[in-house]
Amino acid sequence: MKFNHVALIGLGLIASSIGLALKKRFNDIKITGYSRTKATRDEARKVGFCEVFDDYEGCLKHADLIILCVPVGAMSETIKRVIPFLSVSAVVSDVGSVKESVILDVEKNLPKNIFFVPAHPLAGTENSGPSSGFATLFENRWCILTPSGTVPDKIIKKVRFFWENLGSNVVEMDAKHHDLVLSVTSHAPHLIAFTMVGVADEFSKVTKSEVINYSAAGFRDFTRLAASDPVMWRDVFLNNKDAALEILGRFTEELFILQKAIRKEDGEYLLNYFERTRKIRRSIIDAGQDTAEVNFGRKH
Amino acid sequence: MKFNHVALIGLGLIASSIGLALKKRFNDIKITGYSRTKATRDEARKVGFCEVFDDYEGCLKHADLIILCVPVGAMSETIKRVIPFLSVSAVVSDVGSVKESVILDVEKNLPKNIFFVPAHPLAGTENSGPSSGFATLFENRWCILTPSGTVPDKIIKKVRFFWENLGSNVVEMDAKHHDLVLSVTSHAPHLIAFTMVGVADEFSKVTKSEVINYSAAGFRDFTRLAASDPVMWRDVFLNNKDAALEILGRFTEELFILQKAIRKEDGEYLLNYFERTRKIRRSIIDAGQDTAEVNFGRKH
Repeated sequence: MKFNHVALIGLGLIASSIGLALKKRFNDIKITGYSRTKATRDEARKVGFCEVFDDYEGCLKHADLIILCVPVGAMSETIKRVIPFLSVSAVVSDVGSVKESVILDVEKNLPKNIFFVPAHPLAGTENSGPSSGFATLFENRWCILTPSGTVPDKIIKKVRFFWENLGSNVVEMDAKHHDLVLSVTSHAPHLIAFTMVGVADEFSKVTKSEVINYSAAGFRDFTRLAASDPVMWRDVFLNNKDAALEILGRFTEELFILQKAIRKEDGEYLLNYFERTRKIRRSIIDAGQDTAEVNFGRKH
Repeated sequence: MKFNHVALIGLGLIASSIGLALKKRFNDIKITGYSRTKATRDEARKVGFCEVFDDYEGCLKHADLIILCVPVGAMSETIKRVIPFLSVSAVVSDVGSVKESVILDVEKNLPKNIFFVPAHPLAGTENSGPSSGFATLFENRWCILTPSGTVPDKIIKKVRFFWENLGSNVVEMDAKHHDLVLSVTSHAPHLIAFTMVGVADEFSKVTKSEVINYSAAGFRDFTRLAASDPVMWRDVFLNNKDAALEILGRFTEELFILQKAIRKEDGEYLLNYFERTRKIRRSIIDAGQDTAEVNFGRKH
């Protein structure tokens, strides 16, 4: 059931964390990696989570699990470069935040005997690059698999087992449904955070230090999301356009209703709304998806 | 320079934290408190941060600093009830998140010899009520004073000293300017968080557990803000209507531009925007306004 040689294509936070987690848990697995960027390869060599190659051929030779850890927009180009060097029994996976477009980009190019098991580990931080990886990133975090109907159960099970071995809770989901759920829980919140931070930045041309100094009143929570990898997020929105625009459309409608309630001084509407949203945090804490400590346990 | 008897009107998180901080730092200060709600008074008695009264008269007798710790919308009514029992040399202050409307509500009612020094400690958590207070809440946090031109320097200095003694960094600011800055750093982010959580809640009628389970992908940060005290926030928006609507208007404009960029697949615009917002978090961490630890130091 185990893979013997994992090849990581793209060496950012997620690839680095996979490598470090594998090294921590297994001493008999071969891990190779490739990045097209010299600075990233040098950084990855320093972190030491895999054997770093400057070429696809060296990295992919005999690999039985290939994980595409590149931004979603680079999947199509990357899989074309990977295919010539794939072993006969290789399994291809990825870690992209969008699944339907990635399946379209990857699956159509693959030879018939090689299967693609798309994966999305719901893990990451506001930092990026090989140095920001750590071995425990996936522990007790969800990993969503969205294989198409053509992938044999046996192959899906191997990938499921792989992620479970890194400490994740694995679930399977339809790719389109994944993209909708994630646009609610992740893509829309990120775009909204980027937007609010952009507005504050513009405003801060007048009162720069004030926005920074008084950010603890709420704004700083947005800045954490808005500090995430820009390339990754550009690609998410370009590749999950319809679902993102749908949720953002719903958000805008709702925001207009609340703005109108403020304008009309409808205190009862506002109060009911705020009481409803307060309960949701309780559900998230009860589901073990966040800490109950105030301010996330921050000291100030 | 010190106050001898502090009376807390309203016994929520902030009042409780003031009482606990005073008790921790001084053993010669008298602290009394009043709440119109029996359950709150009972809870406050259990926490033990002040001598709790069921009536204004008992609470206010001989008090030389009265701090209004009620929601912004209750200030007008509260000050009318407080005035008959004020000592001749009493100083009145508050802790409201909006300052211009509070000055209007409070100052016009005060007798000539009694001065109002409005204060806004930028501190709090997503929890509310007397039991959620703690003695270190104000340490290394900003407290903004917004006295009108009629208040003597000597009185302002006493209130400044009071907050510095609780560990805060005190600044003075024009009330109108305070309300605009805070609508960027606090009021708009909170309304946006309430809105997004409301949208997700509605969406979750279809896939409830999924939105909760996969909230760690970004959404959970919004739920913390959207868990704040509903009455307090209703009053903030009703009393800082113009500034809140102005910033929300700017936010909506900007969100439409980003939505259009997604619709038109303008990757360059998105990337530039996201790169700009990323830098702002660095400034906030450099200014000591947030932790540099990933995920705010959360363990998962």
